[in-house]
Amino acid sequence: TGVGHPKPHLLSRREVARSRLFAVEELELRFANGAERTFERLTGSGNGHGGGGGGGAVMIVAMPDPEHVLLIHEYAAGFDDYALTLPKGLIDPGEDIVSAANRELMEECGMGAQRIEPLVELSLAPNYMSHRIHVMLATDLYEKRLPGDEPEPLIVERHPIEDIASLLAREDFHEGRAIAALFIARDRLRSERTHEQWW
Amino acid sequence: TGVGHPKPHLLSRREVARSRLFAVEELELRFANGAERTFERLTGSGNGHGGGGGGGAVMIVAMPDPEHVLLIHEYAAGFDDYALTLPKGLIDPGEDIVSAANRELMEECGMGAQRIEPLVELSLAPNYMSHRIHVMLATDLYEKRLPGDEPEPLIVERHPIEDIASLLAREDFHEGRAIAALFIARDRLRSERTHEQWW
Repeated sequence: TGVGHPKPHLLSRREVARSRLFAVEELELRFANGAERTFERLTGSGNGHGGGGGGGAVMIVAMPDPEHVLLIHEYAAGFDDYALTLPKGLIDPGEDIVSAANRELMEECGMGAQRIEPLVELSLAPNYMSHRIHVMLATDLYEKRLPGDEPEPLIVERHPIEDIASLLAREDFHEGRAIAALFIARDRLRSERTHEQWW
Repeated sequence: TGVGHPKPHLLSRREVARSRLFAVEELELRFANGAERTFERLTGSGNGHGGGGGGGAVMIVAMPDPEHVLLIHEYAAGFDDYALTLPKGLIDPGEDIVSAANRELMEECGMGAQRIEPLVELSLAPNYMSHRIHVMLATDLYEKRLPGDEPEPLIVERHPIEDIASLLAREDFHEGRAIAALFIARDRLRSERTHEQWW
């Protein structure tokens, strides 16, 4: 997908920092016009968040009824505060994305879903992270709780999916990927309804 | 914004890794119910991307006319490929968000804007990053190029803002924050048009 620019040539690549969850890689690149640049990028260190080098991650738009979506209040260490967002988590080794989405939903919201379908795949910060998350639409929910690794039970909230504006007005709702996921799900549901009206 | 849960108590905090752009901090936290957990979070190391600890960042929804938005093709080191996204960049020390947005637009798209207004502030991965980006709507554009630090001139594309679906169908368009920004801008423009029709 170069669209005019051939990909730069990798001159060298080395790990420059590592923690339990994150690793940082330094890349020396030569672009097609000869310009050379040093980049840093995050890669996962095993089961870390940074790179998504492992199985990747899932985010779930779970609908308990055709008008509402489930949101969680979760402690967000990057902000040292609680944030309102969609349930999500890393895919376990060997797990498929549908099973991962259902497990996270059971752990974080105490609900399972009869029907789970992929909506979109989102990147986080492609300039310096390889992380990708599979956004899944979960419907036909039923009560089922699995123990997760959360330090405390998450507070779960139902919100009308048509009313994204009032979420955006809240101070604790700001995660780009969750906002993208809700708009994509809302547009999908709108177009399905239009389709039904016509046929 | 605890909504039921008081914030966890910080038991300890130390830096566990550092590179030119990134730093990783380890936090020991005790939650209100007594559960203790170790978290890692990325913080900016000076002018780095990770934390946004400095002046933060801006992303621009720039409209050359009332129907189109400017997208850039940029090399994304995290994916080792070109990605289609919105112009964005870090705010320089002492720079305000409007000036930063206009400068990035001039550097990346060769355009300035007579009018720049804030649309929304988005987080990246609040669970482990403090990064926030100010999304700005830029209109009344004029030609003006500033030299940036890009290794090669960016290819700029005009796309109808009403047609986000065809962007989502493309393999090189996947950045969550850019998708959120486009939907928010599109909804804002739709509601302004509706308002104008009525009044």
